[in-house]
Amino acid sequence: MANPVDPSAKTAITPRRDEDFPEWYQQVIRAAELAEPSDVRGCMVIRPWGYGIWENMQRQLDSMFRATGHRNAYFPLFIPLSYFAKEAEHVEGFAKECAVVTHTRLEVDSDGKMKPASPLTEPLVIRPTSETIIGASYARWVQSYRDLPLLINQWANVVRWEMRPRLFLRTTEFLWQEGHTVHETEGEALAEAKLILDLYERFVRDHLAVPVFSGEKSESERFPGAVQTLSIEAMVQDRRAIQAGTSHFLGQNFARASGIQFQNREGRQEFGWTTSWGMTTRLIGTLVMMHGDDDGIILPPRIAPTQIVILPVATKEESRPRIMEACDSLALQLRGKYFADLPLEVEVDRRDLGGGVKNWEWIKKGVPVRIEIGPRDLEKNALVISRRDQPVKIKESMSIQEFVATAPEILNSIQQNLLERARGFREANTRKIDSKEEFYAFFTAKNSAKPEIHGGFALAHWNGSREIEEQIKNDLKVTIRVIPLEDSAEPGRCIFTGESSSRRVVWAKSY
Amino acid sequence: MANPVDPSAKTAITPRRDEDFPEWYQQVIRAAELAEPSDVRGCMVIRPWGYGIWENMQRQLDSMFRATGHRNAYFPLFIPLSYFAKEAEHVEGFAKECAVVTHTRLEVDSDGKMKPASPLTEPLVIRPTSETIIGASYARWVQSYRDLPLLINQWANVVRWEMRPRLFLRTTEFLWQEGHTVHETEGEALAEAKLILDLYERFVRDHLAVPVFSGEKSESERFPGAVQTLSIEAMVQDRRAIQAGTSHFLGQNFARASGIQFQNREGRQEFGWTTSWGMTTRLIGTLVMMHGDDDGIILPPRIAPTQIVILPVATKEESRPRIMEACDSLALQLRGKYFADLPLEVEVDRRDLGGGVKNWEWIKKGVPVRIEIGPRDLEKNALVISRRDQPVKIKESMSIQEFVATAPEILNSIQQNLLERARGFREANTRKIDSKEEFYAFFTAKNSAKPEIHGGFALAHWNGSREIEEQIKNDLKVTIRVIPLEDSAEPGRCIFTGESSSRRVVWAKSY
Repeated sequence: MANPVDPSAKTAITPRRDEDFPEWYQQVIRAAELAEPSDVRGCMVIRPWGYGIWENMQRQLDSMFRATGHRNAYFPLFIPLSYFAKEAEHVEGFAKECAVVTHTRLEVDSDGKMKPASPLTEPLVIRPTSETIIGASYARWVQSYRDLPLLINQWANVVRWEMRPRLFLRTTEFLWQEGHTVHETEGEALAEAKLILDLYERFVRDHLAVPVFSGEKSESERFPGAVQTLSIEAMVQDRRAIQAGTSHFLGQNFARASGIQFQNREGRQEFGWTTSWGMTTRLIGTLVMMHGDDDGIILPPRIAPTQIVILPVATKEESRPRIMEACDSLALQLRGKYFADLPLEVEVDRRDLGGGVKNWEWIKKGVPVRIEIGPRDLEKNALVISRRDQPVKIKESMSIQEFVATAPEILNSIQQNLLERARGFREANTRKIDSKEEFYAFFTAKNSAKPEIHGGFALAHWNGSREIEEQIKNDLKVTIRVIPLEDSAEPGRCIFTGESSSRRVVWAKSY
Repeated sequence: MANPVDPSAKTAITPRRDEDFPEWYQQVIRAAELAEPSDVRGCMVIRPWGYGIWENMQRQLDSMFRATGHRNAYFPLFIPLSYFAKEAEHVEGFAKECAVVTHTRLEVDSDGKMKPASPLTEPLVIRPTSETIIGASYARWVQSYRDLPLLINQWANVVRWEMRPRLFLRTTEFLWQEGHTVHETEGEALAEAKLILDLYERFVRDHLAVPVFSGEKSESERFPGAVQTLSIEAMVQDRRAIQAGTSHFLGQNFARASGIQFQNREGRQEFGWTTSWGMTTRLIGTLVMMHGDDDGIILPPRIAPTQIVILPVATKEESRPRIMEACDSLALQLRGKYFADLPLEVEVDRRDLGGGVKNWEWIKKGVPVRIEIGPRDLEKNALVISRRDQPVKIKESMSIQEFVATAPEILNSIQQNLLERARGFREANTRKIDSKEEFYAFFTAKNSAKPEIHGGFALAHWNGSREIEEQIKNDLKVTIRVIPLEDSAEPGRCIFTGESSSRRVVWAKSY
């Protein structure tokens, strides 16, 4: 969102966001070297810059999981078909997306071609999610209430065959974390699902500068086999929703399917109460769509693999050694500073390329702060700073000493600025709507000069019926993103039927 | 190796090492809750304690890779069959171990059974290693010598169908890191392969307390498609070798197969020079076999998920609060201390179980230091310390203050002690052998009172011929583990043929 669009300005990304948002998205990912499609349909290659963002997300989420008592483990990639089919809704929900291993070994066939050779007695599904395979282990591990709660997370790749892949947002293989927990009581499992929802909301807000609506999914949008699905939903710059994380209360459904039973405090056998929850590499796509501008991605400092890049400006050979020395010395000083409890991530770009080329590369990659040091700056013991949350033309001269002292504050200011912009944008594009006509107009008006009637999030009363949801989806491609939780009660009347409603729900088009 | 075996002593693991080493290994893994077999043949579940060890290995290796200029990325799980077949030796080497995805979607068949539904036009191999899929990206990324070196690592799961699986050592799915680099010259690629070999050697020595022999593999033991395979080989307690890490110089073979070409400094197109290298979850099995004793695993402090466990001994209810408070206070003080640049990992075991049960659990899990605090200790401001590198019966009383001050030193002493023991064991079981008769006797003598003629590593001259290797393998199941590198030259005569030889090579039975 960020900088106001000046259509005459030269930008790094073609097309601009307002020309073709989906194409802009692809081009930003390419220009920032975040990822690229592979020759395997729907599978992407995550390049070092994109993977560095994922590693930072992992590190942060992982420490939040640990702090709440979770430990990591690893379960098999393959699920025997018979396991997978144990929970009826579950298998139905995922059947269309499964990739199946049917053979092992390759052999050269009679026509000289390499072919799969040995059929398996039971086909193996590549995990699209691991409830059923993890359940088999949990059934062995859980014997008594003393073994509960069982709080485990897994970092893994999963596969869901995608017909319409889109980098990060929908890929056949993606990376994620999946938490799987077992509890003694329904109440504890519900509390766990909510605790994780809150953790996810805090994580995306504080680290990704992404504000969200959180709440419960309607029945039709639930995870296959879940009793309750909680979700956080972000609004990106084309005003669509992205589901950024989900947390499921699974009741005793999967415990029954997998035989997770324990002896309770009264000495009776009982099925466990389970939850599962996940966040994926889709978050990287969310970041791009949330904070990118016409020059590329803008990375929140807390998640940027490099927070500050130092660009030596040494056009003349004789000044080169002094400039390099000053840049290295600055980097060293900065690395002794902390931001968000971690040492600053600083890189000196020593490559023998034109300054303009290098500068634009880093702009496209979204590094929060760029520093240039040339011979004249050095004479004054100064540097030139550019903030990625400000237009490219804005540069500020500053003494080296002052920059070293204030670098963490500057990063913090960028982090806060991105969050405030995102909040402002979301508020400007979220509207309480009280009639069906206004609702339809909100989601169909196009190219209006007023962005607030150009779609976005609609907060509207609904009678709770699946038929209404279906109709709205068919008419407008709009769905209920979340039903806010208890604290948002506000009695009213369904705008489609006039029936009574206890709260507004959040409607939007989504990815 | 560790503590001398007193056959009358009660041990936690049945059988003892000297009774049945392979079965002892399985039982240690079960008792320490490191991993368990899954119902998918050859695939294991890595439990939190085992996975915690892997996470520590990852963290350490990752920082060593970063410090040498490598960055992480992620490439697809699936390799189109046609890609995989591009390098002839490579596909031949892995053909028998491939798992193949041939279908997507599940459908209920006419007989009511769930079946794979949509055949793929081209089958997909699940990566057994990623040279070919990564090569396709590198061919796009590498255009000019300016793009080199390209230094990338991936943390991933891979699949190699195993006929005789064994937890950690040989599993159908395993976790690993695989580095893949491209260089401008042959010399740089060779230097990279050697740099990683040295890095691996340092890592296992300093963190896993595992001494190794390093060197080059003979032609028959090379990675399929490599020009040179370097390896580090550890000797475990049954005196067999475990290959703990390999680093391959691939010449231009894979660059040719994948089309990784660049414009060199003279403006001509040239194929890149590539390397690949990897370490796997097999290292966990190596740790067990290297440092375990008849009571379970012994974890080197630098790799233990928990380094110090504090066990409150509160048999009487009234003393409980004071004891707990003392334990928590001790934990807090210890967590402010550092060992090997990281805060101490300390756990207070608050579980409501018998002290003996808890104590034995932690012994089996190999926690380096166990601390007990009971009412009498507390009166004296003291605690009781047990070191896992010493026999279970040895306990020492120490003031709390002294323990806090010396905990890092104690951990360091355990770390060093494990390394020295392993070195001593290896030296005692490595022998220079100068005749064929002695060689055959070394590898066939059984149950001797003298362990040094019970097999181990033989350093013997060899004429360099594949036929001799084949014969020794057939006769004794002994192979050349490594040919030590240049600095070990020592002219002699092949003990099998009398032909001249420039150095001794390392022979052993292996996993």
